[in-house]
Parts: sequence; C-alpha cells; structure tokens
Amino acid sequence: MKIAVSRKEHFNAAHRLFNTSWSNEKNDAVFGKCNNPNYHGHNYELIVTLIGEIDPETGYVFDMKLLSDLIKEHILSHFDHKNLNLDVIYFKELNPTAENIAMVIWRILRQQIDEKFELKIKLYETERNFVEYPAH
Amino acid sequence: MKIAVSRKEHFNAAHRLFNTSWSNEKNDAVFGKCNNPNYHGHNYELIVTLIGEIDPETGYVFDMKLLSDLIKEHILSHFDHKNLNLDVIYFKELNPTAENIAMVIWRILRQQIDEKFELKIKLYETERNFVEYPAH
Amino acid sequence: MKIAVSRKEHFNAAHRLFNTSWSNEKNDAVFGKCNNPNYHGHNYELIVTLIGEIDPETGYVFDMKLLSDLIKEHILSHFDHKNLNLDVIYFKELNPTAENIAMVIWRILRQQIDEKFELKIKLYETERNFVEYPAH
Amino acid sequence: MKIAVSRKEHFNAAHRLFNTSWSNEKNDAVFGKCNNPNYHGHNYELIVTLIGEIDPETGYVFDMKLLSDLIKEHILSHFDHKNLNLDVIYFKELNPTAENIAMVIWRILRQQIDEKFELKIKLYETERNFVEYPAH
Amino acid sequence: MKIAVSRKEHFNAAHRLFNTSWSNEKNDAVFGKCNNPNYHGHNYELIVTLIGEIDPETGYVFDMKLLSDLIKEHILSHFDHKNLNLDVIYFKELNPTAENIAMVIWRILRQQIDEKFELKIKLYETERNFVEYPAH
Amino acid sequence: MKIAVSRKEHFNAAHRLFNTSWSNEKNDAVFGKCNNPNYHGHNYELIVTLIGEIDPETGYVFDMKLLSDLIKEHILSHFDHKNLNLDVIYFKELNPTAENIAMVIWRILRQQIDEKFELKIKLYETERNFVEYPAH
Repeated sequence: MKIAVSRKEHFNAAHRLFNTSWSNEKNDAVFGKCNNPNYHGHNYELIVTLIGEIDPETGYVFDMKLLSDLIKEHILSHFDHKNLNLDVIYFKELNPTAENIAMVIWRILRQQIDEKFELKIKLYETERNFVEYPAH
Repeated sequence: MKIAVSRKEHFNAAHRLFNTSWSNEKNDAVFGKCNNPNYHGHNYELIVTLIGEIDPETGYVFDMKLLSDLIKEHILSHFDHKNLNLDVIYFKELNPTAENIAMVIWRILRQQIDEKFELKIKLYETERNFVEYPAH
Repeated sequence: MKIAVSRKEHFNAAHRLFNTSWSNEKNDAVFGKCNNPNYHGHNYELIVTLIGEIDPETGYVFDMKLLSDLIKEHILSHFDHKNLNLDVIYFKELNPTAENIAMVIWRILRQQIDEKFELKIKLYETERNFVEYPAH
Repeated sequence: MKIAVSRKEHFNAAHRLFNTSWSNEKNDAVFGKCNNPNYHGHNYELIVTLIGEIDPETGYVFDMKLLSDLIKEHILSHFDHKNLNLDVIYFKELNPTAENIAMVIWRILRQQIDEKFELKIKLYETERNFVEYPAH
Repeated sequence: MKIAVSRKEHFNAAHRLFNTSWSNEKNDAVFGKCNNPNYHGHNYELIVTLIGEIDPETGYVFDMKLLSDLIKEHILSHFDHKNLNLDVIYFKELNPTAENIAMVIWRILRQQIDEKFELKIKLYETERNFVEYPAH
Repeated sequence: MKIAVSRKEHFNAAHRLFNTSWSNEKNDAVFGKCNNPNYHGHNYELIVTLIGEIDPETGYVFDMKLLSDLIKEHILSHFDHKNLNLDVIYFKELNPTAENIAMVIWRILRQQIDEKFELKIKLYETERNFVEYPAH
C-alpha cells in the first residue's frame, strides 16, 4: 500500500475575478464583489501531497524540506505578495479562481516531481472555501 | 481530471442519542451520557463538497455563493438552533448520530445539486469526532 | 513579575436563552432563535487561567494535571452532556448566556483555588463568540 | 468585576504598504515585497471586544447579533473585497498597516458603541502577524 | 454507500531520525537537524478512520468512545511522553519518520479492528507536515 | 493609547521535567510521565508581543520581519530541534517547564528589544497548556 505525505505552505496575493470577453454587467452579475476592478486579496493556504512508496533507507516518501524548497522556488517566489492578474503570467488570460490557481500550481509542480509520485493540490482561498485537484 | 470544491458552514443544535425500541437500561449502556433525556448539544461544522469539471467561461466548478445559499435554505434553516430529535422531521424515527445526520444532509442536498456533480458531506460533531459520507 | 498559566477543556451542552418573567413575545424579540423552547446546543471551549509566582522547586505556577482534575471534578462533571437550564442548579433562575456561564464557573473554581492565585475564565460559545471574566 | 464579550468577523482585502513622501528606493528598503505597486492581499480576521457589566435582565453585556450587525454595517461593507488604498477613504493618506487598520476600525466603532463600554480591537493580518488596540 | 468515522487523539514524544548503517556525515547530510543525537520532539496529532456500514440499531459505524479507548490502550500508552527510538520497540531498527510511525500505528490497530472495517491513519508531525496511510 | 504587535513562531524540542536535588521517587510523584529519563517532546508555539507607539512615518510599531529575524537568531537557532535539558545552556540547572522556558525567552529577547517597547511572551506547550509572561 502507498502512503501520502503532505506539506503546507502559504502565500498572500491580490486578485480580481472576471471574464475579459464579457460586459461589465455580466461580470458583475456572475462575480459580484469579487469583480472589484481595484482588486481584493487573500491569505492562500496551499497543501501539496505526494503519494508513493516509503524509501526503506530513509523512511521517507519524499524529504519534506526538499518539497518545501521546491514549492518556494517554483510557486511562492512567483505568487507571494503578488497581484495574480497582473504579475503572474499564467493568469493573463485565465481567471484566477481557486480552481484555476490549483490547476496551474499542479501543472507547474508536476514538471518538478518525479512521475513515480502521484501529485495532489489542496488550496484554501478562505477558511470556508477550498478546492482539491485532482478530486480523486 | 475532475476538481473538488468545498464550502464550510456550521449550525448549533441540541440532540439526544437513543433507540426508541430499547429499554432505558440498554440505551444507557450503549449511549452513556449521550442519552441524557434532557438533551445536550454541539456546534456542528459542515463541509459540502462538489466534484466536477471547471466551467471554462467562469473558472468555477460551482459558485460558492450559490452553494452557501443552497446549504442555508435547505439545511441550516431547518437544523440551526434546533433540537434535532424534536424539531427536525428526519429524526423523528432516526437516531441523530453524526453518521445519520451526514446521510440525511446528503440526501437533502442530492435533490438540489445537478447529477453531473458528485456530492460529499463531511460533518464535525466535535473537533475530535467527525464523519464523511460517502466514504470514497 | 507574575506569570499566567492556562488550561483548555471543553464540554458539550444544550441550553435555551429566556427571561422567565417576560412574555414569549418579548423573549422572542430579545433572544430570537436562541429562545427555541426545545433547546439548542454548543461545544463550549473553556480556558482557565491562574496567575501567580513560579515555584522555584518545581518550575510550576500550578500543576496543569491538578488544574485539569479540578475542572473535571467541579465543572465538567456537572456541565458536560447536560441541559444547562434543566440539569445545572445554578441556571434554575439565571439565564445561561455565555456571560453568566463564565461567571458561574469563576465562582465555583474560586472556592477550589488558593487565594494567592488570581483566577480568570475565558469561554468560547462558538468560534466567533466568546467572553472573559473578569475582563482585566 | 466587569466582563469582556467578543465577536469575530473577517474581511478579504488588497493593500500596498508605502509612504507617499518617500522615494521608491526608500519604500522598497523599508516595506520590501509589501510595497508591490500592483498590490497583494489578506484574509483579515477581526475581533471586536466590549467590556462592561452584565445586564441582569438579559444576562448579556451586549447582544452579539447587534454587535455583528454594527461591524457589518460600519466596517465590513466598506472594507470587504476592497482595495484598502484605493477604495477606503481613511487610507488615502494613511499607510494601511495592520496597526493603522486596527486604529481606524477602533475610531469608527467607538462612535457607534455607548461610552459605558470599553472597546478593543484585535486584527490578524495573517495567522502569524496580529495587532491589538489599545494594548491595555 | 459506506461512511467514514474518525477519531482524533494526540501524543507528545521525542525522536531522532537516522539510519544506523550510515556514517554520521551521511546521516547529517540526509536528516539535518532532525539527526540531533540528543533528540528533539513533537506534539503528534493522530486521526484514526474506520470505513463501514451504519448499524441500523445504533446509528453508529463504530462507537467513538470504544475507538478512543482502543487507541489509548494500544497506541497512546506506548507512545505518549516517550522517546520513540529508545522506548518503543517497533523503532529499535526502524527510523521513526512520520511515514513509519503511521505505518506502525496502522499495523497495531489493524489487529484490534474487525476486518469488516477499512482502516486509515492520518498523522500530523507538525501543523505543516503530515502523512496518510494508506494513501487511497 | 499604545498598540500591541505580535509575531508567532514555533520550535520543536525534547525535554524532561525533574528536580536534580530530589529523589527519583519524588520526581515521579510530582512530574509523572513528564519525568521520562529518555525525554519526550513538543511542538512549541511562541508568540512575541511588543507594545509601543505607531511610528507615523511607517505605520509600524515594529517591523514584523525584523522581529521574526530577531526571534530566529536569538531563540529558534538555540531551541529548535534541540533537547532543552542537554543542548540549551539556560536549562542546565533550571527545569524546562513552560513557565521557565517563557521566562528565559523573555530575558533573552529583553536584551535585544529597545526598552521603549514593553515585551510579552506567550508559549503554547500543547494546544491545551500555555503560559504568558509577564501576566499583566
């Protein structure tokens, strides 16, 4: 049986939810106060999970210090204290909903983590709203 | 791959655990102090999860504001600040254990959520006791 | 300088807020859904704080195991899994608001704790509502 | 002895820390990544505390529902899902540090709360950084 | 559909991470400050999950009081306030990483829990590092 | 009025509670399982609070980044992943209770923080046991 190991990190960012191809009226109707053109922001809590075998020599699936360093280098350095819409290239055309942020983080980290590990992302936008990708 | 989106809500309720077809002695033996005939109560934390595809136009799987409104209308308005045994019709015959409360909430919300979304319920009765339905 | 030591415990109870000398209409107007005649309930989080000098022989202000035992014997055994209005003698005439519960707990424990220690009670009724007695 | 009652609310906002009378270089040196001209953001947790006497008729110091409504009307409606620098008039000239935000919230609420109650504000900018005004 | 029920317990223990067949240099390179020969320690949070059917007579999958007692008897009495390397027989040869601790706990409890229940272990070593066994 | 600013950090350490001038029997009677000669351990949560005036130029009482750096340099580098009894010079003769650890941390940081700021330490040994120094 495989085991899952998880590391929790966080970043603070501004964002605005809107669809660039819609009218202001439609954006307001769908996204409400999340469509404030001056942006709002969140303390995002990010949990990265790797699933694999325990290495019998170390007792680790993956060194959590190394995982933390990978998240800092490839995610936090680009997302923390940023405006997701303006400063993060992935969201130039993509609406920075929690769903899309989680999917983007998964795609970035998937290139950094050996394919022998299954990879999952859990992202809290607030204490009450969170997403998991992939779902299973 | 599908993505899971979750919304956390809460309600405060009184309840008593007992089987109406058992003697007082048997109820005391099985349910202990949870069988206080004058009731006790909990702050229930409820997490509702929907699993589906990201809508490419909105970046949402499901609008969390709408999900919150559905939970308020169909669950919280009937459960919050209530006596589950006396005030909630589903528990007239059914023992309001955390397991049964989660199953009842799932059945109510299942009728309100489009079948294209998988639905899961997580319910904390206390910080130390919680249930998830369905389990997988 | 003195030091404060604190122990956190919890109890689960049912209650109803109302003034026995008021009409139903006035009780509803003031207490709203907290006046459900069938009761509702909470997971109460209780923090008991003692302020005093560090004993140079033990390094303790007060043994937290002994404080936990005192709370269990004098508070939890009477409050946990109870209906505060019906089962707890202090609330036969006194409305079991968080304020009054905290004051009652303070009075009970004050008789069990040596006068050389200052005593404070913090009581969470929910994660969002809590009281502290005395305030200073 | 007086008792303290507290209500926790939250708001999500964008902000940028800088002194308009300083050069970019000095602002970068002092505020670092908090000076991102495109803003970043936070989930602010706000705890409002009132200190007073228990009303013997209600058992309340202050109705927590009324306090929540006051906070929503006078604070959250102006701060939630806003850019503190651009959308909130109090920060046109004042740097929106946690310290200044707490002081502004105190001044706004002080005008809404009867002088017989002492008023305190606790504001979490992140789980690791928070302020309390006044300190004593 | 099956339902999952979970119980959270905790224990406080000292440990040291190292491979007895490696040199000090290699142990330092791999385990860093976790290889302090004088040990360090953690507050471990342990969540034990059972998956099964709801018993129609009790409304329980498993009595949480009984599960808590089983965990206390078979895990906490051997792990709490112990040095995992020196005091716990399972780690005489096995490196007490979070992964290995979770696997050992699973093996111990698997012998105490009826095979009709699926068993899962979640173990937090810190708020930021945790493991789940089995992963699916 | 002054304002309080707080920074939360953490360290993981092993310790053993005992009085070197007492017999084993007396140490066992007073400290129980905390007197395990092989040590046990904790995730300590440390909150450092400074009370002072808001600097009108920065809007800060004290830069939280600088406070975090001071805590890392003067406390965490000596306490984290250590055995408090064996590795930390302050506890060669002093029993490392939460009370004494908080007092030692206060004394160390008091030498690093300008006297114009009042200094307070809050230390969680577990989620249920914590101390504050000074108490007022």
